[in-house]
Amino acid sequence: MDSSTRPTIQPCVDVVLLTIRNGHLQVLLHQRKKEPSLGGWALPGGYIHPEEDESTEAAALRVLKAKTSIVPPYLEQLRTFSGPRRDPRGWSLTVAYYALVPWAILKAVKGGDFETIPAAGALNLSFDHVEIVKEAVSRLRTKGQYSSLPCYLAGVEFTLPALQVVYEQVLGDALNKAAFRKKIQDMGILEAVVGKTVSSGPNRPAQVYRLKKAFRSKLALLERGV
Amino acid sequence: MDSSTRPTIQPCVDVVLLTIRNGHLQVLLHQRKKEPSLGGWALPGGYIHPEEDESTEAAALRVLKAKTSIVPPYLEQLRTFSGPRRDPRGWSLTVAYYALVPWAILKAVKGGDFETIPAAGALNLSFDHVEIVKEAVSRLRTKGQYSSLPCYLAGVEFTLPALQVVYEQVLGDALNKAAFRKKIQDMGILEAVVGKTVSSGPNRPAQVYRLKKAFRSKLALLERGV
Repeated sequence: MDSSTRPTIQPCVDVVLLTIRNGHLQVLLHQRKKEPSLGGWALPGGYIHPEEDESTEAAALRVLKAKTSIVPPYLEQLRTFSGPRRDPRGWSLTVAYYALVPWAILKAVKGGDFETIPAAGALNLSFDHVEIVKEAVSRLRTKGQYSSLPCYLAGVEFTLPALQVVYEQVLGDALNKAAFRKKIQDMGILEAVVGKTVSSGPNRPAQVYRLKKAFRSKLALLERGV
Repeated sequence: MDSSTRPTIQPCVDVVLLTIRNGHLQVLLHQRKKEPSLGGWALPGGYIHPEEDESTEAAALRVLKAKTSIVPPYLEQLRTFSGPRRDPRGWSLTVAYYALVPWAILKAVKGGDFETIPAAGALNLSFDHVEIVKEAVSRLRTKGQYSSLPCYLAGVEFTLPALQVVYEQVLGDALNKAAFRKKIQDMGILEAVVGKTVSSGPNRPAQVYRLKKAFRSKLALLERGV
């Protein structure tokens, strides 16, 4: 078949935006306002605009900004999903990304047209978005086990108990408090915010930490998993 | 801009086929027979054919088969590369894959219109193919360090000294013989081919091994790197 007569493909991007809300890993969804899958829950996404997007990553950032006003602290390409049956309009291709955003940032967005639901409960989404969410969670789990990646979900400042909840949600498993603290200390990525503590309940106040400046925009890798 | 007036994107696939030839990690290239980049060296690739390809992976397999007659034992999506400047024809998008093929299989192909050159020396290729090759080697290195992945480069049967050369090429580093053998033994993925040895030089004959059946189509993971 000559390329001029070949059916065209309009490539898309979709973003799995993950956050920790109420102590649970959650995914951001919006309700579709048109066909196909009118009223269905879906990932934020859209067509690539070659006239304005410098890359698929730029397209993902544009789409996220349009839907949530947010520029995520962490965005990584997940995988490209494609085929003749994932969208009823015909052969389609989407470059999927995943983003990590602290809930404090998402919460502050006014008028965002979205919801978040537990990632583990995202079982009935439009298109192949269930598969895309599963793969994003799996990637976060693998990569988070060996790096500081989950810190992007913790916010700018956090206590060690709060950070432990984030790692537990990412890994899907309870962690031993002493072993977790040793691992984090061994990574050498955190610094105490001098004089700042948080009180909750009868325990003594918890020290507030933040990522050292050198690690705020890069990952620290662990030789052995958390 | 309305989607009907938007410039179209014709998505492509490209494949970084890696092999170990003469003890070195090499990449398969072909010389372009038309513009753009006429005469330049490039990865095997081509447009997705929605009328026949079930997915981008199927497109990658079709393209590889057309150029080399080979169905690779291992094929994995690498990343999608995109933007307005990577191809002089305009905004383009390619879903890149990497494939691992033992040299014995590539060598047996008759009339293949390709060459292999050391991956580390692939510094002057068409489009952004240098970047794609670099990223494939980096992925192979990371993933190979923690798994049986390099075994796909070793062929169906191999000696331990030959397998060590494969791991050394993948990792880009010399390995201690005793430590390497212990790691491989701990993985529990190999079985001796009874009664089969290979003689080379004055050393005693080397036992021939192969992957156990259960590992021939799946990766074994290592908790700590080789």
